[in-house]
Amino acid sequence: MRAEVLSIGTELLLGEIVDTNSAWLSARLADAGWDVYWSGRVGDNLERVVEALELALRRSDIVVTSGGLGSTDDDLTRSAVARIVGEEPAIDPRLEAHLRDWFARANLAWQDLMLKQATRIPSAVSLPNRVGTAPGWLVPVRDRFIVTLPGPPRELQAMWIEQAEPRLPKAGGFLLRHSFKTWGIGEGRVFELLGALVKPANPSVATYAKRDGVHVRVAAKAANPVEAASLAGPVIEEVRERLAGSVWGEGEDTLVGQICEVLRGRGHRLSTVESITGGLIAHEITSVAGVSDVYAGGAVAYDPAVKVRIGVPSETVERFGVVSEETARAMAEACTAWFETEYAIATTGVAGPTDLEGKPPGTVWMAIRGPGGTAARRLASSSRSRAQIQERSTFAALGQLWRALNEGTA
Amino acid sequence: MRAEVLSIGTELLLGEIVDTNSAWLSARLADAGWDVYWSGRVGDNLERVVEALELALRRSDIVVTSGGLGSTDDDLTRSAVARIVGEEPAIDPRLEAHLRDWFARANLAWQDLMLKQATRIPSAVSLPNRVGTAPGWLVPVRDRFIVTLPGPPRELQAMWIEQAEPRLPKAGGFLLRHSFKTWGIGEGRVFELLGALVKPANPSVATYAKRDGVHVRVAAKAANPVEAASLAGPVIEEVRERLAGSVWGEGEDTLVGQICEVLRGRGHRLSTVESITGGLIAHEITSVAGVSDVYAGGAVAYDPAVKVRIGVPSETVERFGVVSEETARAMAEACTAWFETEYAIATTGVAGPTDLEGKPPGTVWMAIRGPGGTAARRLASSSRSRAQIQERSTFAALGQLWRALNEGTA
Repeated sequence: MRAEVLSIGTELLLGEIVDTNSAWLSARLADAGWDVYWSGRVGDNLERVVEALELALRRSDIVVTSGGLGSTDDDLTRSAVARIVGEEPAIDPRLEAHLRDWFARANLAWQDLMLKQATRIPSAVSLPNRVGTAPGWLVPVRDRFIVTLPGPPRELQAMWIEQAEPRLPKAGGFLLRHSFKTWGIGEGRVFELLGALVKPANPSVATYAKRDGVHVRVAAKAANPVEAASLAGPVIEEVRERLAGSVWGEGEDTLVGQICEVLRGRGHRLSTVESITGGLIAHEITSVAGVSDVYAGGAVAYDPAVKVRIGVPSETVERFGVVSEETARAMAEACTAWFETEYAIATTGVAGPTDLEGKPPGTVWMAIRGPGGTAARRLASSSRSRAQIQERSTFAALGQLWRALNEGTA
Repeated sequence: MRAEVLSIGTELLLGEIVDTNSAWLSARLADAGWDVYWSGRVGDNLERVVEALELALRRSDIVVTSGGLGSTDDDLTRSAVARIVGEEPAIDPRLEAHLRDWFARANLAWQDLMLKQATRIPSAVSLPNRVGTAPGWLVPVRDRFIVTLPGPPRELQAMWIEQAEPRLPKAGGFLLRHSFKTWGIGEGRVFELLGALVKPANPSVATYAKRDGVHVRVAAKAANPVEAASLAGPVIEEVRERLAGSVWGEGEDTLVGQICEVLRGRGHRLSTVESITGGLIAHEITSVAGVSDVYAGGAVAYDPAVKVRIGVPSETVERFGVVSEETARAMAEACTAWFETEYAIATTGVAGPTDLEGKPPGTVWMAIRGPGGTAARRLASSSRSRAQIQERSTFAALGQLWRALNEGTA
């Protein structure tokens, strides 16, 4: 059984926004056992939306659209679906009442153009929008279905999970996915370790270079979860064995979560002092819920004077420079003292666009301080992008801490 | 003249990665005057890739593909293009020599499977890859063109700009875009202010709700930049006038950049102390280059003890709670003193998933401290998502600082 996603909106084709909905919907559909072979984007043009929907209906059992459900003239999804089934949209009094009520409760002035969102064709089942104003439609077309969802991701996701999925036929299949997440080895090395295991068959094994290391995904498709598990099981074991020592997590694990679990087990705490990464390490740590028992806090020491105030000897900065192994080490050591933690991460470097102390952008020193001592490491990123240098430094530091915790070197 | 983007890779259809390439390519193509009416994604299946390419070639003058140029069996883009033009790929000795040289210089062991990346069909012009290993192809098909680019965004972008664009015909058109960026007014209010100006005509006016406020984009398409400017000019002026007072920037301006410009003009500096936002405000500030003269640094005060160490009276935290107006104010005041800055931003709140001090997730207090005093504000986010609460709080704080600087209230 095939499903297809069609994202509607000229803004997607002008590159004004990135189409994250189709990735989200595709993943949900695939997990539910649907074969997703295509997805497309089309602009706000009635002829082209109709054409794209017709093409999709010829080759897929379910077509899910996102976007084009607003109130303005360029919101054309309803008109396109109406034309395909040969019906006329009309205002549904219940939808209108619901919408007027929504405006009243939100304390917003009613606007008549909103009435467009209260229209429905006779064959459409209306899908309530819990998060926003525009309801969706579920429309049977012969033995197939069109589902129209609003563009804003929060509205789309809630409507799909709560309203659309339960009303649709089952795909009659199940996709099992299992991920291994590595650090410290490149994609080339992962290929060497896995060899012929990497292939697009069923079960399939694929590798992805992500910001927190290379991920390896095993996927198996079968009629039900039990068969999928027995298909994937031996491959998962084989991959686990071959990657041993480089895997920091599996499935939904996060690098920060894994680090915090080790620290929690030892009753130790962590702090950060960041120059080049400018708060990104702290942000990555605090984006994980429930780490406040392990993460004390951090300092963003952008001005060198702040490094000194936190306890870095000013002679160290003056003698070796802000971007140096010595300053990175002193930052990590000062950080554990100031925040009263056992562990600390420190970063200092040149984010660019210009040189600093005669060092080019991409020059980064990081240090990890722990009960076992302080370890420093130099990163040289060939990237010219400030965002990339900051991101790579952040995950290099977190990866280095994970390794140090596992090898007992810090 | 029409252009179309086709992203190739099963990982896109499984939702394993988000397709950012097509947004980037579409924007480049649109800016160069191409009409981009469709874009698509197809999995690693030869029949379907060929079919998708054929459809695209029927309706567009240029088809740009991303992905499927690697060395494994599921990299099928070259085979699909070869089939369309009826040619056989063969190893190009110059490409092989270049690739072997690349491996030698990178100190990597040569792997024979890499030879696939050195193949070429006779009619393809090879596009060198400065960033990675897989070269692209530029293939004339009758009076149209297929351009194949590698999937990794850095490789794709460099190859498009340096190798593909200069070799392709000109679209014979020009798209002018101009953005206004607002803060403090919702999309509904922007609609009210702009009225019938918002329309998909030429020039077009569209609104986008972004994390840093509602953006309004005016776009005009014409034969050349001068005509586009004279078409867009009056509309741009009209939009500017109607949005007066709510616009913090235009074009490529960033909220942090605008804030820093005002501070720089006054010779003042900024620091941050973050609890709920956990470093995200510092990260947003330091993601902008050249702010080190204005931004001294920040503290991530996750543990309440860190708040006290930075100078928040422990009685304030004990009496009013960590998440309170009084603690937010005291944090901002302590922050200016500790970092020796004129301005400070402070945030404290409940990110969830559980309540804190009897307050539900989404409860946030922020304070802005400046020479004119301290202003505090409560935010109540209905979101259940930790990431969303942190992001909204960050931009609410930056927006509030921008407003305070412009209204002289802090």
